[in-house]
Amino acid sequence: MKLVLRIAALTGAVLAASAASAQSWPVYGGDTGNTRFSPSTQINTSNVKNLKVQWALQLGTLRSQESTPILVGDTLLVTSSFGPKNTFAVNAKTGEVKWRYSPDIPKGIDQFACCDVNNRGVSFADGRVFVGRLDGNVAALDIKTGKELWVTKVVDYTQGSVITSPPTVAGKVVITGYGGGEYGARGSLVGLDPATGKEVWRTWTVPGAGEKGSETWKGDSNKNGGAAAWNIGSYDPKLNLVYYGTSNPSPWSAVVRGNDSSNIGPYTNLYSASVLAINPDDGKIVWHYQFTPHDAWDYDGVNELVFADLPIEGKKVPVIMQANRNGFFYVLDRANGKLLSAKQFVDGVNWATGVDMKTGMPIEAPGNAKRPGMGRKASNVCPNLIGAKNWMPMSWDAQTGLVYIPTINLCMDMEGIAGDYKRGQFFLNVNFDLAKQGAGGYMGGVKAWDPVKQQTVWMNKDDLFYSGGMLSTAGGVVFHGDLKGMFKALDAKTGKELWHFNTGSGVTAAPMTYTLDGKQYVAVVSGRTLSIPAFFGPLGEKMVDASPEGGALFVFALN
Amino acid sequence: MKLVLRIAALTGAVLAASAASAQSWPVYGGDTGNTRFSPSTQINTSNVKNLKVQWALQLGTLRSQESTPILVGDTLLVTSSFGPKNTFAVNAKTGEVKWRYSPDIPKGIDQFACCDVNNRGVSFADGRVFVGRLDGNVAALDIKTGKELWVTKVVDYTQGSVITSPPTVAGKVVITGYGGGEYGARGSLVGLDPATGKEVWRTWTVPGAGEKGSETWKGDSNKNGGAAAWNIGSYDPKLNLVYYGTSNPSPWSAVVRGNDSSNIGPYTNLYSASVLAINPDDGKIVWHYQFTPHDAWDYDGVNELVFADLPIEGKKVPVIMQANRNGFFYVLDRANGKLLSAKQFVDGVNWATGVDMKTGMPIEAPGNAKRPGMGRKASNVCPNLIGAKNWMPMSWDAQTGLVYIPTINLCMDMEGIAGDYKRGQFFLNVNFDLAKQGAGGYMGGVKAWDPVKQQTVWMNKDDLFYSGGMLSTAGGVVFHGDLKGMFKALDAKTGKELWHFNTGSGVTAAPMTYTLDGKQYVAVVSGRTLSIPAFFGPLGEKMVDASPEGGALFVFALN
Repeated sequence: MKLVLRIAALTGAVLAASAASAQSWPVYGGDTGNTRFSPSTQINTSNVKNLKVQWALQLGTLRSQESTPILVGDTLLVTSSFGPKNTFAVNAKTGEVKWRYSPDIPKGIDQFACCDVNNRGVSFADGRVFVGRLDGNVAALDIKTGKELWVTKVVDYTQGSVITSPPTVAGKVVITGYGGGEYGARGSLVGLDPATGKEVWRTWTVPGAGEKGSETWKGDSNKNGGAAAWNIGSYDPKLNLVYYGTSNPSPWSAVVRGNDSSNIGPYTNLYSASVLAINPDDGKIVWHYQFTPHDAWDYDGVNELVFADLPIEGKKVPVIMQANRNGFFYVLDRANGKLLSAKQFVDGVNWATGVDMKTGMPIEAPGNAKRPGMGRKASNVCPNLIGAKNWMPMSWDAQTGLVYIPTINLCMDMEGIAGDYKRGQFFLNVNFDLAKQGAGGYMGGVKAWDPVKQQTVWMNKDDLFYSGGMLSTAGGVVFHGDLKGMFKALDAKTGKELWHFNTGSGVTAAPMTYTLDGKQYVAVVSGRTLSIPAFFGPLGEKMVDASPEGGALFVFALN
Repeated sequence: MKLVLRIAALTGAVLAASAASAQSWPVYGGDTGNTRFSPSTQINTSNVKNLKVQWALQLGTLRSQESTPILVGDTLLVTSSFGPKNTFAVNAKTGEVKWRYSPDIPKGIDQFACCDVNNRGVSFADGRVFVGRLDGNVAALDIKTGKELWVTKVVDYTQGSVITSPPTVAGKVVITGYGGGEYGARGSLVGLDPATGKEVWRTWTVPGAGEKGSETWKGDSNKNGGAAAWNIGSYDPKLNLVYYGTSNPSPWSAVVRGNDSSNIGPYTNLYSASVLAINPDDGKIVWHYQFTPHDAWDYDGVNELVFADLPIEGKKVPVIMQANRNGFFYVLDRANGKLLSAKQFVDGVNWATGVDMKTGMPIEAPGNAKRPGMGRKASNVCPNLIGAKNWMPMSWDAQTGLVYIPTINLCMDMEGIAGDYKRGQFFLNVNFDLAKQGAGGYMGGVKAWDPVKQQTVWMNKDDLFYSGGMLSTAGGVVFHGDLKGMFKALDAKTGKELWHFNTGSGVTAAPMTYTLDGKQYVAVVSGRTLSIPAFFGPLGEKMVDASPEGGALFVFALN
């Protein structure tokens, strides 16, 4: 982890952070490698049972609570689901609100946000707070006052492209992607000047007509190709590379984009369902790896890309790890994208039997058995489209050598249908049924995964799905919440529950921790997802019944 | 307090409670005398600093949080602002939701709820939970399942009459009033059979044409006379009397209802702005006392009527106490309504200089100086129409002999204008400006008041108004919240703050306490008022800035 610089002052050119040294939490993922591991040991397996709420902050919305706060000095920055007043700066010791950001957000914007008006938090550098706004703008705010320093339009939200994740500060740019894979929007990553907001570069995640890679799209399907980079990026300052996952291609029905069978031919649909390594100076794609070529299942490749130095063939190799929606856990060489290993990290994966280590291609179930096509229904495909893991972040604990993953055990039926692209409307071209529980009598659970051996170490099964993101600490404790509203501390080695607190509403956001004046705090946003249950029929009703809607930040410390 | 029976089991004919013996909290006001005093001493002035959150329950709404939970067995019953899922039954030790009540509430009902979609809680007797619904219905629910046992329509909400307070269980009836004083609705109190929901009696709070008291209304103004009993009642089983305050008469402009001057003549407008003592067996009015005859200021008389046994002329007299919106603290003989004393309990009261102890009439400022009339503006009238105290309940502590009152220090301008009654619309006939701070550099505060000497013992001034309701305990601690979201414990004798917790949203609801398996809990609903600021112009903006919107129950105990 020593690769990553740490500059956590209010001034300074660019903020990055090292999980190894940080007692702070300067970026969404804890460090720019999204490890969500803290070296703090004040709270540990012996005393975590004494954790108590220090203060709470109610977030003024009930729609979606996916934010991880960041700490800047003694200020905690947290967001709620996007509305006119979604960004809070509060005193990290007391919760006293310093300012609240109130941009004008157009009414009716909900229809362009496929999966609720999410916002996962902000980023910070050099006195500026960067907010990715649902209306397609990125704003820079003065950390002291919350006043707008600049606002830059990155994308027209009326095409179905909203910004829901914190920008990535890397080198001399602030990078953001946006959503739109469900609306036939064409994805891009955009580098902005942190001082002025000026667009420095834009890299399309789907090649334009005649450009290299456009041959992987049938006809002119690249025009509405999706591959939206709507989740968080990672940044390795030493390699000077920024990593982003991309979403499903558009539309979900693959026939529009290529062959209607698992014999996909040239139509891999680059760079959808991929990881892109880009140079933050010019936005150029340095390497890519495609997890799900010619995706037909809405297997977004956006899940966070987590850094580790893993012992591989006797050497410590800087890698990227991703627990993909498609059910495979990927380990890639961070420098060049070489596939080092890929294995099913959940039971029941049946769309593919494995990944060919030579070609990097998934080995699909034979005879289109699990590939939906035009008028061809694929039944009981596992995982379903929310994936073996959704956006809720995992955590990498270098001490235990384990990754802690909120997993999902659901399957689906899907069948391609005809449909035309209409700007700003869903462009899916499928019928689907997501309300299918996977085998084994559980719907999800938290799993400890050994990324070297690529095997499960322990698992806490859950009768519901949609568990919250993870935090691990050097105190040997793993924290996460669940849909019932329980915020839990687990023994990192065994998964045994050491403590819980009932937050009174479902937790999907990932917790964070910080230390101020010698006191370690743990913070988590609580608030049960409102929009997702609608996709899941009777299983959705179970989600709704699990806990009331909410929106609150809880901050804990030892007595 | 020994007057009041205590039957707190799941079965039994009627539930009542004694503050002196209760370790429970079976009714909204702690006991049927609304003292909001608990004899529990486990949490006291020495250890209250160690209070910690045990669990939270997020309430699924942000609109209005005015509920005090009640305890039935080991079940806590709490409501949020009224929506389709506003009533929760939860495990009182863990917060686990047992059931949630989901009635169909008509869309657009907001327009008939003058002051937001409030709900202050439920009541209970004999296995049944009684819910006063915003849509004018009272429902009885099975305590075990939350299923509806019966639903009775009490009033047509489209006339502007909503139910926002828990019914009063008294003898063999369940009694409710409803709102509508701002819509020209005519008030009534209704007795229902707890077993069947059948209407047993209905007592109009404004006499009908030709009935005794109708002569106090000019012309046929009684038809739309208001006097709505929208707040909580009190019940004295020994005297077999139920007490309800009534709202302002309709419209606010007095000329419609009588003389346009402080020489009000016969037009007192009975029984508006009054307390009514009724026999719960037949609903008959046994006695009444009118606080503000021919009210011209929207001085509702609905504030809770609190029981005490006060030493008066050498005898312990069972009394009712009310801190009225009009700025006077009234002490009445509970048996016969005799006025025992009345005194300004806040600074600056200027609409009247006192109360005539012989006639019981307020001594108004001379020459209509503070009485608005048709085209006659009264300037800087204090208190303003939200009153020297609003609905947020006070607490009577027989140990200290003090009443703890959340007070307000605001004034107003008001002027009568012409207007006609239109069903379901505001019927005010005034122009007004409420954004006028009272003298002294503060807008409110919590006051300890000696109701015998009728004088202030201590006061904690607040730079904002709309502090939360009060709880006092035999541990010598007074609890309340404020608009900034701070939930505080005060020394009952001095008002000194002993502890606080930041709930992250404004607190207006009154806290309660209960003891289970030897552990004393304190519970409070937090959630900053959303609708009230709109009435207060620039002062309203200060309210909004005080804290984010919210909706959560916090439950505390010692470590």
